[in-house]
Amino acid sequence: MFTSFNDVRPEVASFESYEPGLSIAEIAERYGLSRVVKLASNENPLGVSPKVREVLCAHAADAFRYPQAGNPRLVRALAAYYGVEKDRIFVGNGSDEVIDLLYRVRAVPGVHNAVAFRPCFGLYPTQAKMAGVEFRQAPLNDDFTFDFAKLRELVDENTTLVLVTSPDNPSGRAAPVEALEELADSLPPACLLVVDEAYIEFAGEGHSMLPRLDRHPNVALMRTFSKVYGLAGMRIGYAILPPAIADYLWRVRLPFSLNILAEEAALAALQDADFRDATVALVRRGRAQITDGLRGMGCDVVPSKSNFMMFRPPAGRQSAQELHAALLRKGVIIRALRSYHLPEWLRVNVGKDEENALFLRLTQEILEEKA
Amino acid sequence: MFTSFNDVRPEVASFESYEPGLSIAEIAERYGLSRVVKLASNENPLGVSPKVREVLCAHAADAFRYPQAGNPRLVRALAAYYGVEKDRIFVGNGSDEVIDLLYRVRAVPGVHNAVAFRPCFGLYPTQAKMAGVEFRQAPLNDDFTFDFAKLRELVDENTTLVLVTSPDNPSGRAAPVEALEELADSLPPACLLVVDEAYIEFAGEGHSMLPRLDRHPNVALMRTFSKVYGLAGMRIGYAILPPAIADYLWRVRLPFSLNILAEEAALAALQDADFRDATVALVRRGRAQITDGLRGMGCDVVPSKSNFMMFRPPAGRQSAQELHAALLRKGVIIRALRSYHLPEWLRVNVGKDEENALFLRLTQEILEEKA
Repeated sequence: MFTSFNDVRPEVASFESYEPGLSIAEIAERYGLSRVVKLASNENPLGVSPKVREVLCAHAADAFRYPQAGNPRLVRALAAYYGVEKDRIFVGNGSDEVIDLLYRVRAVPGVHNAVAFRPCFGLYPTQAKMAGVEFRQAPLNDDFTFDFAKLRELVDENTTLVLVTSPDNPSGRAAPVEALEELADSLPPACLLVVDEAYIEFAGEGHSMLPRLDRHPNVALMRTFSKVYGLAGMRIGYAILPPAIADYLWRVRLPFSLNILAEEAALAALQDADFRDATVALVRRGRAQITDGLRGMGCDVVPSKSNFMMFRPPAGRQSAQELHAALLRKGVIIRALRSYHLPEWLRVNVGKDEENALFLRLTQEILEEKA
Repeated sequence: MFTSFNDVRPEVASFESYEPGLSIAEIAERYGLSRVVKLASNENPLGVSPKVREVLCAHAADAFRYPQAGNPRLVRALAAYYGVEKDRIFVGNGSDEVIDLLYRVRAVPGVHNAVAFRPCFGLYPTQAKMAGVEFRQAPLNDDFTFDFAKLRELVDENTTLVLVTSPDNPSGRAAPVEALEELADSLPPACLLVVDEAYIEFAGEGHSMLPRLDRHPNVALMRTFSKVYGLAGMRIGYAILPPAIADYLWRVRLPFSLNILAEEAALAALQDADFRDATVALVRRGRAQITDGLRGMGCDVVPSKSNFMMFRPPAGRQSAQELHAALLRKGVIIRALRSYHLPEWLRVNVGKDEENALFLRLTQEILEEKA
């Protein structure tokens, strides 16, 4: 029972207090740096496509209009692009909103549960908690490969969602599609398998469940414009779903959750094959450059199919935390993985060639201090 | 119990199927029109401020970056602008997200209830249902003034939210601040009074609870950049709240729900006093122009403190539905109010002077056909 206007739901009270991170400008100021390179958030090294920038400018004057509810133009464009029926497409304010709504639509609080690996994307457990849904996790193997048998063991008759990210974050490993198919076939009838393919374009479509959806009606895919399309700040996630679920997601979604310029940007980005191809080529080159470079310094690097690598410094040198801090002081931001409960590991995303080289050179310098 | 991957929560199953509306372009095509004037969504008649358009263009290249979680720059700017502590400010992807999160934070499903007037903003009941929260409504008086005694009667010890829009939508009436203060003082200790001031700038700050917040710690205000700031498509809502509630909203909000360009646009709009003043002046002039014009034709017009007017055609002429359809065929979109259960009424927002004149001329022509 609430006794004050300051009281909140018990689930909410257990969320941790929020502390905003530092911006690039704030880090530059703190360490007196003229240049800061950010390789921490898996953003696109090429930035925003020039064609999309043009479209954003051209449509800036439309920002006073409400978006068209249901985003029918973007839905049609995505359906045509992927060759799927448009009643299977759902679009949200980032995949974050899609995840949140999947819990709210597909799970009765206090009754149903959801299953995922550990570690996993941070919003899987938080949005489950927010929705009052039990969240179960099977550990990844020590080398961050996927133990689908262990995952399957957690599924019972009240499991209505299983969430798998492939390629995974933060490891970069892709799940074998055959294993995903086997998992889908093994699930009880009430359970939907959601495969988050945010990074799939860097792995190649051979790793995607997309061509296999017809044989697996209980599988949904999530994708995003944040990575290969270079639009993380515009917040555009989408999903390919069983039509009934897509329909219900549209019914309950806040009608204007997708920003009007986000829709224009997405439409333009979808048509810009050159930018997408250039991004994928740059990422694959940089992935080899960084993996080889770090291994050459004795680092342990998880093989990545994504646009980032998870690694740890060699034994006897700086800890992950020390290396992270030393790089920050020199103006390179990479990602510490404490929030994933992986304090020994770090994650770095592929940047431009010269940014990758700078990161490798500074890492080598730092590690040699303790050689 | 779910038996299929197509099953959904019972609350969700009762949401109506979604049908996207027509865009201006689609209406122009359907009726063979070269120009369509939209006076249906209470958008800003001046469009987007030229200064904001510039900022949007200048920052288009940043769209590949994730926004800064917690939007600290916008929070600081809003706190400074309104002279309130920054720990009282919350920002969301439109007021829609703020409303949704208020239910999810301040009400235990199946236990607490929320109270509002009827009719009210459509998202008040839908987001209550989505959150599993009982929603109670007290009818407005026949002239759309507020019966606060009746509203208060619905409040009990399990009421944790009371929502009032002032100026109200769709009536345009502003609630007397003294009545809001009396209501706030009368509420049980667990109840938060949320006053949605989306349209307050058109009424004048004398109608706002803002200067009275210090005396009423159980009152929260919602505001938006969609109206006077001309940024409906950018989805920026904000609230001034008890600090504890603002803190919890930040803890549970999707970390990047505000688009990166939305934040830049909001920062620029907040500084553009000229545009805001010009909008308010235009709206006040147009409000008188439309009210007088419609009354001159015998229409019943509810006195408005907002940027729109609710009216009904004189008895013996076209029905509201007929007038709405006839205007649409001539290229003027206004708002039918069936979804508010007010089928006899229509809502028109203030446009540019010449748009208002066009709307009045066409309405007169249509009504004279049945004179």
